[in-house]
Amino acid sequence: MPTEAAPGKVRLKADDLRTVVAGIFAARGTREAGAAMVAGALVWANLRGIDSHGVSRVPRYIELFDKGESVADAVPTVERPRAAIAVVDAHAAPGPIAMNRAAEEAVACARDCGIGWASVRGTVHTGAIGYYTSRVADSGMAALGVVAGIPNMSYAGARGAAVATSPLSVAVPAGRHELVLLDMATAVMALGRIAQLKAAGKELPPGVALTKDGEPTTDPALAAVPTPVGGAKGSGMSLVFELLASGLTANPIVPGYHGGSNEGRRHRQNAFILAIDVSAFLPLAEFTASVDDSVDAIKSLPPADGTAEVLIPGERGRRSQAERLASGVPLGLKVWRELTDLAASLCVPVPEPIGS
Amino acid sequence: MPTEAAPGKVRLKADDLRTVVAGIFAARGTREAGAAMVAGALVWANLRGIDSHGVSRVPRYIELFDKGESVADAVPTVERPRAAIAVVDAHAAPGPIAMNRAAEEAVACARDCGIGWASVRGTVHTGAIGYYTSRVADSGMAALGVVAGIPNMSYAGARGAAVATSPLSVAVPAGRHELVLLDMATAVMALGRIAQLKAAGKELPPGVALTKDGEPTTDPALAAVPTPVGGAKGSGMSLVFELLASGLTANPIVPGYHGGSNEGRRHRQNAFILAIDVSAFLPLAEFTASVDDSVDAIKSLPPADGTAEVLIPGERGRRSQAERLASGVPLGLKVWRELTDLAASLCVPVPEPIGS
Repeated sequence: MPTEAAPGKVRLKADDLRTVVAGIFAARGTREAGAAMVAGALVWANLRGIDSHGVSRVPRYIELFDKGESVADAVPTVERPRAAIAVVDAHAAPGPIAMNRAAEEAVACARDCGIGWASVRGTVHTGAIGYYTSRVADSGMAALGVVAGIPNMSYAGARGAAVATSPLSVAVPAGRHELVLLDMATAVMALGRIAQLKAAGKELPPGVALTKDGEPTTDPALAAVPTPVGGAKGSGMSLVFELLASGLTANPIVPGYHGGSNEGRRHRQNAFILAIDVSAFLPLAEFTASVDDSVDAIKSLPPADGTAEVLIPGERGRRSQAERLASGVPLGLKVWRELTDLAASLCVPVPEPIGS
Repeated sequence: MPTEAAPGKVRLKADDLRTVVAGIFAARGTREAGAAMVAGALVWANLRGIDSHGVSRVPRYIELFDKGESVADAVPTVERPRAAIAVVDAHAAPGPIAMNRAAEEAVACARDCGIGWASVRGTVHTGAIGYYTSRVADSGMAALGVVAGIPNMSYAGARGAAVATSPLSVAVPAGRHELVLLDMATAVMALGRIAQLKAAGKELPPGVALTKDGEPTTDPALAAVPTPVGGAKGSGMSLVFELLASGLTANPIVPGYHGGSNEGRRHRQNAFILAIDVSAFLPLAEFTASVDDSVDAIKSLPPADGTAEVLIPGERGRRSQAERLASGVPLGLKVWRELTDLAASLCVPVPEPIGS
């Protein structure tokens, strides 16, 4: 039996949610395969419990289409200037379309050369980067991925938004266990999580955000700029990720943003994915057995006071995924209303929530 | 005129320090080129102000030679199973010898394929990882490097030492500016820095370390286990770095360590270096100009309250290097005495401190 939706939430079957999201993008001109990619990436984030990167973003993509900042039917083009590297020019296609292509290219390069790198130039909202690294891992490779975007986080020692909360994801295939999946913002707390606490009227933990004047605050209503994890470490990671993701695609974001022009402040993202063909180093089964042993060793550690269980990166998300695949994806009523209004306006059939 | 040494310190010319360190290693059987590499890496760390990774480590290498855990005259062997990857087996050679070889291999692979990856299997003390990534950057490439070692840091939610303070370094070549060089432990505070505060009798900031019983402490005398930066983020990074550095070289550290055998707890390190041939993506001058623009944009930000200047990763180290190249490397008297005793016992000439 499906779980009852929490008050103020509806629950949707993941398949239904993918269908309506893909339908919305297809109705706005995205090709069928691309629309399915966008829906797959967004619903995956919801399944994993990363609701801030899920279907709540659909209206924002449509807004970017309307403003011409993203192109619904753009088809990324690929250059492969050397055997182990590819550059995917997104031509402003939605992030999941460009990122899926990059993941494929990185895997293809890695099959040839042992490792493969794909840079992505000029896309918008990539969603949860862990989706793409975990897809690479599903093919028996390890992966590392980074996304760079418009500055929205502070930089150690500076006032105001300076660099992006650029996430880092590393996915490592395991054997008996599920893959190890790190997916972290370079901020102490991801922007989406701050927005969730704000929506819930909850106070922020100290050290998470600054006001627009650069003062530390725990009031989510005043929180304008998230702070980097570990001070100079987080902002340093974000800066070098920008230099690699945006610099290698000749599409730097930081200088134009701080130049202050409208063009410099336009939403856009660059990224890269590195695929590592484990089987080029050692038999895959030997590698995944050692990953299993490491996971077992960490899971067997005595928990710290106040902790019931030691968790591996990705474990919480996997549990959410299992639960939501079984019981449906919970959506806030506002998100659901925006999605159904959009679907209705585009003559896309709206699915029934579970138990309604 | 050379700066006066601080009380309790001597100052040595960097060249003199390299000569005596190389002499010690050569006297213990390390080949001439390898001895120069070890001296180069350690003295670089001192020049950069990372004294915890400098010549103070020399007695520890000698101890590892004595115990047979490192082999002074080992010559790393290299396999290149695919065009873009190399595996350097250190055969227990000192870290700088294996890591320099890995940096060379990564650069060679990257020249062929656009990117190159070199894994290092079974070395000891690599010193400051930023040395190797910055050497790659000196050849006009970007680099990312990671070292994995014996667990000495806590893991979010677990008690005791669980994973290593595995550092991450990213080096990005610039044009007018010096290269951008991130070199960070995955701990809030590096172990060497905690040891320095302990030696100076200074209290630790909160959140930096746990006692051996897993309780938070600010007393450096009780600090047994440093904590990961950002909690689950730092320990998650450390775990995936171990899985990649040690797993891909079929030399996992975490399971054996927690198995508790003497062999499992023996000091050893694995690593990897990724080199990215910028010129395969775009003209190097165009890339370095955009790095310069980004550095300028960040340096021009208004400083936060209490900050005089916004710093770029690597900037503080570069200033230390300029100052110490001009005025000499300051060494504590204990470090200097250990080094001179060792040199004398091996009939290696001991240089004169500056101004003595």
